Amino acid sequence: MENGGEAAKWRFGAANPALQAAGRHNIRSLVHDLYDCLDKTDPRPVVPLGHGDPSVFACFRTAAAAEEAVVATALSGKHNNYARAAGVEEARSAVAAYLSRDLPYEVTAGDVVITAGCNHAIEVMMAVLAAPGANVLLPRPGFPMYESRAALCGLEFRHFDLLPDKGWEVDLQGVEAVADESTVAMVIVNPNNPCGCVYSYDHLAKIAETARKLGILVISDEVYDHCVFGSKPFVPMGVFGATAPVVTMGGISKRWMVPGWRLGWIAATDPNGILRDRKIIESAIGYRAISVDPATFIQGALPQIIANTDKAFFENAMNVLREAAEICYHKLKEIECITCPHKPEGSMFVMVKLDLSCLDGIHDDVDFCSKVASEESVLICPGSGLGMKDWLRITFAVDPPLLEDGLERVKSFCKRHGKPRR
Amino acid sequence: MENGGEAAKWRFGAANPALQAAGRHNIRSLVHDLYDCLDKTDPRPVVPLGHGDPSVFACFRTAAAAEEAVVATALSGKHNNYARAAGVEEARSAVAAYLSRDLPYEVTAGDVVITAGCNHAIEVMMAVLAAPGANVLLPRPGFPMYESRAALCGLEFRHFDLLPDKGWEVDLQGVEAVADESTVAMVIVNPNNPCGCVYSYDHLAKIAETARKLGILVISDEVYDHCVFGSKPFVPMGVFGATAPVVTMGGISKRWMVPGWRLGWIAATDPNGILRDRKIIESAIGYRAISVDPATFIQGALPQIIANTDKAFFENAMNVLREAAEICYHKLKEIECITCPHKPEGSMFVMVKLDLSCLDGIHDDVDFCSKVASEESVLICPGSGLGMKDWLRITFAVDPPLLEDGLERVKSFCKRHGKPRR
Repeated sequence: MENGGEAAKWRFGAANPALQAAGRHNIRSLVHDLYDCLDKTDPRPVVPLGHGDPSVFACFRTAAAAEEAVVATALSGKHNNYARAAGVEEARSAVAAYLSRDLPYEVTAGDVVITAGCNHAIEVMMAVLAAPGANVLLPRPGFPMYESRAALCGLEFRHFDLLPDKGWEVDLQGVEAVADESTVAMVIVNPNNPCGCVYSYDHLAKIAETARKLGILVISDEVYDHCVFGSKPFVPMGVFGATAPVVTMGGISKRWMVPGWRLGWIAATDPNGILRDRKIIESAIGYRAISVDPATFIQGALPQIIANTDKAFFENAMNVLREAAEICYHKLKEIECITCPHKPEGSMFVMVKLDLSCLDGIHDDVDFCSKVASEESVLICPGSGLGMKDWLRITFAVDPPLLEDGLERVKSFCKRHGKPRR
Repeated sequence: MENGGEAAKWRFGAANPALQAAGRHNIRSLVHDLYDCLDKTDPRPVVPLGHGDPSVFACFRTAAAAEEAVVATALSGKHNNYARAAGVEEARSAVAAYLSRDLPYEVTAGDVVITAGCNHAIEVMMAVLAAPGANVLLPRPGFPMYESRAALCGLEFRHFDLLPDKGWEVDLQGVEAVADESTVAMVIVNPNNPCGCVYSYDHLAKIAETARKLGILVISDEVYDHCVFGSKPFVPMGVFGATAPVVTMGGISKRWMVPGWRLGWIAATDPNGILRDRKIIESAIGYRAISVDPATFIQGALPQIIANTDKAFFENAMNVLREAAEICYHKLKEIECITCPHKPEGSMFVMVKLDLSCLDGIHDDVDFCSKVASEESVLICPGSGLGMKDWLRITFAVDPPLLEDGLERVKSFCKRHGKPRR
């Protein structure tokens, strides 16, 4: 019952069309919706192959040094305050030094903006670039936070393909074909989510040349930096910053296995200062001033997190990931209706193609994932969420025995739903 | 020198007009710009009366129980993961129980969305309400994050006045005058930043009646909840949620003196479920899914932060704030060119009027604040940043001896720049 006499006529509602459009690219909802498909009577453990969050497994526990650094700043009483919009100065310097290790020039603290995770870096950069009429080029398959945030701020986006038969390299002819004079930037993700590929020095050089030819900047999403376990080394795009200006985005979420700490960054890796001249970093700080901040004490801990984490932690993490990627690749090979065009060599994901013609009563990738969730308690992200209908994104950043169990269940699901052979 | 042949023609720039418009309401930049005015040769300590951040003073150190709760979750290894978009379930439940203590009905976990501080709550709500053609009513003086975020998502905002001669109550006639059929919500801040007033039960009841008459929801910014030290108790707006639907926003930044932890919330305090029917909370969660998150382990610590912080901490904090408010009010009375229309009784701020006719060579409030910064090393927020030209916002959430020192410096500044009496 309402108070105050006759019923009021309420005029408000949740009717922001930009928000509704942005929500269509929401991978988080897509994966979490699958949780509702789970059969709660299934006694087997749920196998989360849907989104990359290894932190829940003991074998991927973050470095003790990282936890200790955060505890020390939390207990210091010196980092409970608001931080400046660009971030805590020591954290900016630490990121600059961290990135400079792998670059032929020095990044300075002034080139760095601290963000609340790499998703926030995406949000900031889409807002900065959203000039009227501008467009940005995004990879397909990709990471839908780009589409969401671009849609929300009215920045047009166009897709170029990653080529499964060429190790998921960027289709550079496709980039040129889709770009026009209003194109301002292209995004690459390296090591790649969702494809699990790692771009070679030569391919990155070609990307830089293409960007230069088009007069656009490269946003290089390197949140999986150094997360490589095949034969190819990680090469930062910033190595080619003198060819075309590069905005490097990253964070500690993946390398330190702490996605819940929400600490990322944006850095101008651009030795010619073009990003500075065009006020890109200044504008990013301007956006940050009216946006959220990562927790100050986590920012304050960053120098110690970087300095005190020893090689053994990273080596161990890569060894477990390599083992998991092997298991994943070989188990997937045993499943007839799934094709894996490229063995994963980096990040925590692999993209595989679903052959629906082998399956009975499965309409599409979303249907496949819903049924695998309900019948096998295995969560997989449908490729539709990444612009690739009837593909699947599978993460292998899972405790290896559980991963093997989960893929075995997918195999038996596919057998059970397989069309009878003639 | 650029590589790769002739100079490229770079097409990108930081030219998002919405971001530029939003940046004009940026109080953080405004206050931080004053830092550049400081005279580094002044041996006296800088007195930060510009923005409310008591956490840097030992007398306002957060509760040991709060630090311990965060350390425990950081060391547990169980909160390094991504959280769900609405927030960690235990944190949602803890907020629901916390708010229910002061309400005549129960708030449930499903009514709560966890945010990265109350600024993030503002961002979320402005995005949710930004339907085409809609407008929102904001208080003047106010907190410019509302204007910034509304501008950024294209939500029109209109101002109503707070009345200095009526204890900064809302000018309800003004609210009705400025509203039209496209108005969807009005914002109140209680206890009030920047005015330092606390709204009575009767005034809040009248606000609810006005909102009901207009058919709009009330966004009640209660980030200073329970931060009262005068004769008036804190009454949550949600008490009147049956008259008009109320979205309550809050956080631990102020009451626990940890603004840098970035933990806030949005709650539907609406016993008739109108916000649920209009999908307001659902839409807020939808926005959160494509926005940032507060650190998971800080969310995980919230139940213990609330449960384990004893009364003595809050009482002590209020005692220090009461003392500081007294000092502030009495020192300001000694300054001829400054008028304080209402003695602060809540929050951490007071609004005072500057009489430029008493001063020689001071053009306006911004000029006043710049010169006080450079000559006296005292930082004060110019009222222009809050829509009140030639007013000042002063925070008294400062170590009392330093506060007294700072206001003494302002007094001598005003004397030195005073016009000779006839």
